[in-house]
Amino acid sequence: MSITSTESPTAVSFSYRVADLGLAEAGRHQIRLAENEMPGLMALRAEFGESKPLAGARIAGSLHMTVQTAVLIETLVALGAQVRWASCNIFSTQNEAAAAVVVGPTGTVEQPAGVPVFAWKGETLAEYWECTEEIFDWSDEATAAGETWSGPNMILDDGGDATLLVHKGVEFEKAGRVPEAADTESAEFIIVLDVLRRSLDRSSDRWTRIAADLRGVTEETTTGVHRLYELARDGKLLFPAMNVNDSVTKSKFDNVYGIRHSLPDGLNRATDVLMGGKVAFVCGYGDVGKGAAEALRGQGARVIVSEIDPINALQAAMDGFQVQRLENVIGDIDILITATGNAGVVSLDSILGLKHLAIIANVGHFDNEIDMAGLEGLAASGQAERIEIKPQVHEWRLPTGRSVLVLSEGRLMNLGNATGHPSFVMSNSFSNQVLAQIELFGSPESYPVGVHVLPKILDEKVARLHLAALGVQLTELSPAQADYLGINPAGPYKPDHYRY
Amino acid sequence: MSITSTESPTAVSFSYRVADLGLAEAGRHQIRLAENEMPGLMALRAEFGESKPLAGARIAGSLHMTVQTAVLIETLVALGAQVRWASCNIFSTQNEAAAAVVVGPTGTVEQPAGVPVFAWKGETLAEYWECTEEIFDWSDEATAAGETWSGPNMILDDGGDATLLVHKGVEFEKAGRVPEAADTESAEFIIVLDVLRRSLDRSSDRWTRIAADLRGVTEETTTGVHRLYELARDGKLLFPAMNVNDSVTKSKFDNVYGIRHSLPDGLNRATDVLMGGKVAFVCGYGDVGKGAAEALRGQGARVIVSEIDPINALQAAMDGFQVQRLENVIGDIDILITATGNAGVVSLDSILGLKHLAIIANVGHFDNEIDMAGLEGLAASGQAERIEIKPQVHEWRLPTGRSVLVLSEGRLMNLGNATGHPSFVMSNSFSNQVLAQIELFGSPESYPVGVHVLPKILDEKVARLHLAALGVQLTELSPAQADYLGINPAGPYKPDHYRY
Amino acid sequence: MSITSTESPTAVSFSYRVADLGLAEAGRHQIRLAENEMPGLMALRAEFGESKPLAGARIAGSLHMTVQTAVLIETLVALGAQVRWASCNIFSTQNEAAAAVVVGPTGTVEQPAGVPVFAWKGETLAEYWECTEEIFDWSDEATAAGETWSGPNMILDDGGDATLLVHKGVEFEKAGRVPEAADTESAEFIIVLDVLRRSLDRSSDRWTRIAADLRGVTEETTTGVHRLYELARDGKLLFPAMNVNDSVTKSKFDNVYGIRHSLPDGLNRATDVLMGGKVAFVCGYGDVGKGAAEALRGQGARVIVSEIDPINALQAAMDGFQVQRLENVIGDIDILITATGNAGVVSLDSILGLKHLAIIANVGHFDNEIDMAGLEGLAASGQAERIEIKPQVHEWRLPTGRSVLVLSEGRLMNLGNATGHPSFVMSNSFSNQVLAQIELFGSPESYPVGVHVLPKILDEKVARLHLAALGVQLTELSPAQADYLGINPAGPYKPDHYRY
Amino acid sequence: MSITSTESPTAVSFSYRVADLGLAEAGRHQIRLAENEMPGLMALRAEFGESKPLAGARIAGSLHMTVQTAVLIETLVALGAQVRWASCNIFSTQNEAAAAVVVGPTGTVEQPAGVPVFAWKGETLAEYWECTEEIFDWSDEATAAGETWSGPNMILDDGGDATLLVHKGVEFEKAGRVPEAADTESAEFIIVLDVLRRSLDRSSDRWTRIAADLRGVTEETTTGVHRLYELARDGKLLFPAMNVNDSVTKSKFDNVYGIRHSLPDGLNRATDVLMGGKVAFVCGYGDVGKGAAEALRGQGARVIVSEIDPINALQAAMDGFQVQRLENVIGDIDILITATGNAGVVSLDSILGLKHLAIIANVGHFDNEIDMAGLEGLAASGQAERIEIKPQVHEWRLPTGRSVLVLSEGRLMNLGNATGHPSFVMSNSFSNQVLAQIELFGSPESYPVGVHVLPKILDEKVARLHLAALGVQLTELSPAQADYLGINPAGPYKPDHYRY
Repeated sequence: MSITSTESPTAVSFSYRVADLGLAEAGRHQIRLAENEMPGLMALRAEFGESKPLAGARIAGSLHMTVQTAVLIETLVALGAQVRWASCNIFSTQNEAAAAVVVGPTGTVEQPAGVPVFAWKGETLAEYWECTEEIFDWSDEATAAGETWSGPNMILDDGGDATLLVHKGVEFEKAGRVPEAADTESAEFIIVLDVLRRSLDRSSDRWTRIAADLRGVTEETTTGVHRLYELARDGKLLFPAMNVNDSVTKSKFDNVYGIRHSLPDGLNRATDVLMGGKVAFVCGYGDVGKGAAEALRGQGARVIVSEIDPINALQAAMDGFQVQRLENVIGDIDILITATGNAGVVSLDSILGLKHLAIIANVGHFDNEIDMAGLEGLAASGQAERIEIKPQVHEWRLPTGRSVLVLSEGRLMNLGNATGHPSFVMSNSFSNQVLAQIELFGSPESYPVGVHVLPKILDEKVARLHLAALGVQLTELSPAQADYLGINPAGPYKPDHYRY
Repeated sequence: MSITSTESPTAVSFSYRVADLGLAEAGRHQIRLAENEMPGLMALRAEFGESKPLAGARIAGSLHMTVQTAVLIETLVALGAQVRWASCNIFSTQNEAAAAVVVGPTGTVEQPAGVPVFAWKGETLAEYWECTEEIFDWSDEATAAGETWSGPNMILDDGGDATLLVHKGVEFEKAGRVPEAADTESAEFIIVLDVLRRSLDRSSDRWTRIAADLRGVTEETTTGVHRLYELARDGKLLFPAMNVNDSVTKSKFDNVYGIRHSLPDGLNRATDVLMGGKVAFVCGYGDVGKGAAEALRGQGARVIVSEIDPINALQAAMDGFQVQRLENVIGDIDILITATGNAGVVSLDSILGLKHLAIIANVGHFDNEIDMAGLEGLAASGQAERIEIKPQVHEWRLPTGRSVLVLSEGRLMNLGNATGHPSFVMSNSFSNQVLAQIELFGSPESYPVGVHVLPKILDEKVARLHLAALGVQLTELSPAQADYLGINPAGPYKPDHYRY
Repeated sequence: MSITSTESPTAVSFSYRVADLGLAEAGRHQIRLAENEMPGLMALRAEFGESKPLAGARIAGSLHMTVQTAVLIETLVALGAQVRWASCNIFSTQNEAAAAVVVGPTGTVEQPAGVPVFAWKGETLAEYWECTEEIFDWSDEATAAGETWSGPNMILDDGGDATLLVHKGVEFEKAGRVPEAADTESAEFIIVLDVLRRSLDRSSDRWTRIAADLRGVTEETTTGVHRLYELARDGKLLFPAMNVNDSVTKSKFDNVYGIRHSLPDGLNRATDVLMGGKVAFVCGYGDVGKGAAEALRGQGARVIVSEIDPINALQAAMDGFQVQRLENVIGDIDILITATGNAGVVSLDSILGLKHLAIIANVGHFDNEIDMAGLEGLAASGQAERIEIKPQVHEWRLPTGRSVLVLSEGRLMNLGNATGHPSFVMSNSFSNQVLAQIELFGSPESYPVGVHVLPKILDEKVARLHLAALGVQLTELSPAQADYLGINPAGPYKPDHYRY
Repeated sequence: MSITSTESPTAVSFSYRVADLGLAEAGRHQIRLAENEMPGLMALRAEFGESKPLAGARIAGSLHMTVQTAVLIETLVALGAQVRWASCNIFSTQNEAAAAVVVGPTGTVEQPAGVPVFAWKGETLAEYWECTEEIFDWSDEATAAGETWSGPNMILDDGGDATLLVHKGVEFEKAGRVPEAADTESAEFIIVLDVLRRSLDRSSDRWTRIAADLRGVTEETTTGVHRLYELARDGKLLFPAMNVNDSVTKSKFDNVYGIRHSLPDGLNRATDVLMGGKVAFVCGYGDVGKGAAEALRGQGARVIVSEIDPINALQAAMDGFQVQRLENVIGDIDILITATGNAGVVSLDSILGLKHLAIIANVGHFDNEIDMAGLEGLAASGQAERIEIKPQVHEWRLPTGRSVLVLSEGRLMNLGNATGHPSFVMSNSFSNQVLAQIELFGSPESYPVGVHVLPKILDEKVARLHLAALGVQLTELSPAQADYLGINPAGPYKPDHYRY
């Protein structure tokens, strides 16, 4: 990839933007600070920087192009990998981080020495999928290396879009054609079809060859993992997959501790409203809800929780929270948080029942946790008005004469109003990613096609890498004690069903 | 069983003691209060009291004979079962509870109408195993019913002693002899051999016939479950087993919330020492350690934690606790709690390094978490002195000139100095027991020989039965939402690997 | 005082009971353990044991005769004082503590070398006031010393009964007669009149001479302080008084941290009911209510608070508690705590509205916080029944068909069901007492007749004496910093109106 | 004041900036949202909007010109006052708030109908004092009213600068001259002398006439109150003063709850560093330190506290915090917070001992809590380098090879990195201000020259006005209960020395 030219007006290379934006230096400062908060990744660089277990790995990465991801990318490179990168979300790129990665730690804007990144804040959906396609085009690298391959041999995915592209590409190449978009198809899938149609015009077996080369994918998140298990169940999975999401040091850390950090942060940045003394309602007491409830209580709010699962409901009660249905206390609520992953959790009726200027924010999953469509319908018919207080903070004036404040337009406020998970949390998640890449790339014989989780010993290793930074002194089992417990003194320490 | 006579001076029937002690009325008051705190069991009586799914079940129960267990026993009876009961610990029987169960809710001391109970506080080990044998002798019941069976068809076990007796009995009957005790055998196992030797003298196939009749065992606790998995692994398990211990509403409730309750309770009853401002050290941050740390913090203590597992260690740090090795802060500690299940956690060196009158207490498992043997060795050689401050509270004067206070002689202080798990917690555990009995007795076809866990839907049911008592209002999934999530609106709500 | 004889059958000396009870050794063990938890008093012994600033002081003490008070008494003696002691409550004496004090640390039951104590558990009111009179009769001591005085020169009081006796004695001696008891007089005051009438028969100026000798009184508690301010306001106060109650290290420590300790302790000992998940209602969010609410939340209860003072109500809300009127949530409450010092806080209507077997307990002041009279009225008319579950725990069966559990018959449950304030808390209060005695006895010129509080520097000293035991390292002001702040580097550090 | 012209290039009127910046509309939105969070002020408008107790009051206000202050100003106007305003800090003005106040709720940029405001973000010191002088020039208002006065009759002050100007003006008018600035005078005081010298050139008795008209000043903060007590002590105070700072609803609310809110907010905005698991050190456990420690613990940090006052140190220990000297744990600290009001709390040695990229932030008072001068000295000699990560966040590279992050250049980070106290907290403080203005203006006979605090009943009233917004239901004393307690059922409820 050339940093200074682009081949066509629609080319999605980030390259030319770097010079324009001149952001690389600011990004480099931030990366340096983030490295201090990502001891897991830095420890992996120290451990594997010399042996380079990823030498030979060609990783196509699709994951939010943030400062933390920059540290991940540079760790993969330090371990020997070649990398091409796109974001997995049109809004989440931090341009200065992208710029700094392109330039690289030792490069300059004029002489970039980093990694090709195809991502910027505010892509269109069409650009987004072109960016995703770019991470599979390794012809420059092949040429430079005098090799005949043209694609990656590993995917690092978040949400499964990169994986989807390969699977659909193979499917259509086998069929010999890309189907027409049905009326019912989503706008986004129509774009995917377009991308693959153009690809098929150029090559009848590009994706088939790529799939054959792929040793596997490591997947970051619930949605992507869900898709992988479906592919595997249906016998359609083309290569081994590692479920990074369900490592303890991923799911029990970024959900609980990430939200505990970023929920109050987002509320503050969005509204500056005092949480102390307020009634906060948290829909859902899973890991995310637990982190949310703890954070709000820690700021002096009175927290009420709703749950559909009696076990989680009982946990909430035993932790001292009132457990109620939303509609029963709707008029008492100052701050309403959704943390469910479900749809239709906050209905239009509930919104209309809230106090004047109550705050609604989502830390669950999609914006359909809140009936945003209902609100927009009211606005369309002139019964409600939407006033932008500032970006990502809107007052909705309702037909009741009251208003509500909706954060991030009902989308994830920890991303929209705060800055997402902090580096230390991501260091845990990303250390799992790196170890998963090493496993899958280095020991393909251990992982047949299917969906795997990281061995518990590696999950423990990720935790271990983060202890020193917090001043934690681990106790060691004596041989006699290990014997008594019937376990290896080096771990793993728990049975697989242990719940932490 | 007759309540007023015993056949021999060594007879282990509790019967004659009742009249002597006159405790039944006091026990009945306590049972009545406990029923109010055990909504799960009472709900099961309401749900199944008419259909009597345990009609025909003959349950041999071996579990601490406390007030809470009395509510369990009477629930089993209300569901149609016949029951014989022994304790699973020589010290844990509450005599008034035993008396009340023998008398029964509608009986009198003169005309008992309850359940045969073979348990009293302070049994000898020999008496203990005779009591355990008694719960397998159903000849009175068979005679009364005009049946030919002579034993139970279900076991409800805690720790696996009842199950052990059957397995060893069968083994020795097959061998035709009970082996001589080896020198290395524990004193307790020698007693077991004696019991079985006498049995073999009387009948060559008693245990074999019992085992054939048994539909299964439901096992309460970690140790018993561990034994069952070993038997299953070695192909020696004789009947199906239900692992009640690993229900979420068991392990995540009695460990965490039970200890949170009973640790400060035991410390107070034993010492009346203010926890506020003190340095408390908790060895182990598993479920028990988590409950202990939360309770101590809730009383204003500064809590330091030790861990061998880096994941749990990281959790402790993220929860705001200092994580250190015991020896590094030994001189700062006022209250030292073991919560590990491991051996040799508190060494003699550590004990000698503690502050004057520091408190040592175990909420883990066996008394070997603390080097009690080391202390006793010092005393034997005259270097230390043990002074009883009151029962279960001993000052050990050490050669350093300092003393330490040891609670419950290093055994479980939540049992020895407090009153064990409170009724509400036990209602969760015991509701799992009852449902496990119903499952195993009523649907034997679903549970082949092996170790099973309760289906998640029943785990959720147990939680559900405890919500109303806490005023919890559960939210219900709409059909659309259930569809969206791809789950049944009635549950189960989570995948099996979900960690809560 | 002779330990083996008493002068009359009604003599209230504790003496002869010691031999009977043989409790001194047990008491001595407990005193030794308590000394370890009372670093303030032990530090005062170390600091003043040689200079003996209380040499010449003859202290008449009237304060609960507990193990902690034993450490106080022996501290006063170590500082040079002579002491005679009574309890200030008919139930609160711990007999083993009284016995040990009488025997003294170096004495034996046969050769007691301690302090005359006139107190035992379960005195009648008549015995109580005779005991109180005894602490003013120093004729034995005078004879032994060849002195002409016959009474004390200092009072250490808790609640003001000793102070009352002197003031009333002087009043009646001045009048020349003790008035007849009016019909409206309380039973207790009639006894006081009797005691003083007998005294006046024996001597016309005994109390007048005692009052003249008294350098002052140090008063422990709110009620006593309140009486003193009234006497001072009306110009009737006969000698200087030190208000120990309002030292920060007294009121902000024993109320907050004492209750935080003893409320859950009392609930556990009385009922063994799990607090986790329960709804606890705390009437009053003063210092006691704050400690209660924190303790209950620390055990996982959901706490609701009521308040009459809007400032305290706002504090409760800002601390995350729901603030409601009792009657509005009466049907949701599992545990109802009064912490007000007010009367009629829990009405009979409220009691009748509670859930079945809800717990009612008072940590405020008198038993009239709860309408016990109303309950007794129901019982008298056969509409309610009172069942003793165990001492200090009563089930009241109500005409609604429901029951409630009332602890300590509506009196202070931290005394009745728990063991009162723990030693460490009392060490703070009692160190204030000792310093107040030193001040008033040693610097009478600084304290004219009136009610004084301890200088802040001494309040700070009390705190300082308790830091090392908790491992606290205090930071010291540099001279430059002290200069910058305009304060002495040795304190006092705050203006008098500072609220902590 | 004309909104569209200024008389000279140095004129300090904010006027012309409004048109330029066009911020008024944005400010009005924010004011509207803030009104919802300032129920105390809105309730005062409702209560006094008709009776207009401030009719005739001419208030010269000097207090941070923020959105919250805008709500205060418009409340004063709603109560009948005329107002002129300046900020009390060169950086703290929110321009959009200033613009909106100038325009007024019913005015437009072209036709402003608001209050003259002399404040913008980033004034020079010279401009600052000219702004302050402007609030005393009421000639336009006098002309419009046909009155002969030329100045205000009330001051609302924060820090005492407005009060200082009057006192110095009177002093110099009496002396007939303004002294030359001594060499040792601060740069700022030289500016004050210049302002007053120019004033004396124009009028020999301007300040003397102003002082004579002033009914009093209400002072917001510690520093200003301290100056007032000094003036009063020295007999130099010229008019009555109300100490608003020491109302409970001021000092115990904005210090504790304001910092609990804004400390984590500022840390997040500045650094995005996860607090969970980190070691945070809080210098000082006064009200600010208590709020800081609670907030950090609520985010999962391990908090260590330092204190010079043994009482506060003991409170910290009893609240479960480790209490240590900074230097003893310097190498363990991730986040270092000063909350003392003292100088030299964090020495250069301490800074050099911190971990790499440890964060240093001040929520105490002046920037001399941290040895910023020492850091700058290092930089001046080339031994350290200061890198701006972003405004108010600087990395200092130290000679040790490590760096630290200093927030807000050592000044108050809750202002510099966060947005100061949230509206709800300020509503408490400002309701005290309004009531103090009403008292002093309306009842001058009750407040002779001297420093007064608000009657407790008004402090309680302020709390009362904030209850409904939090859903608090206050319990009311029955007449019998009020009688029993000897207090008025409407309050005040506590003695003056009560500590809350």
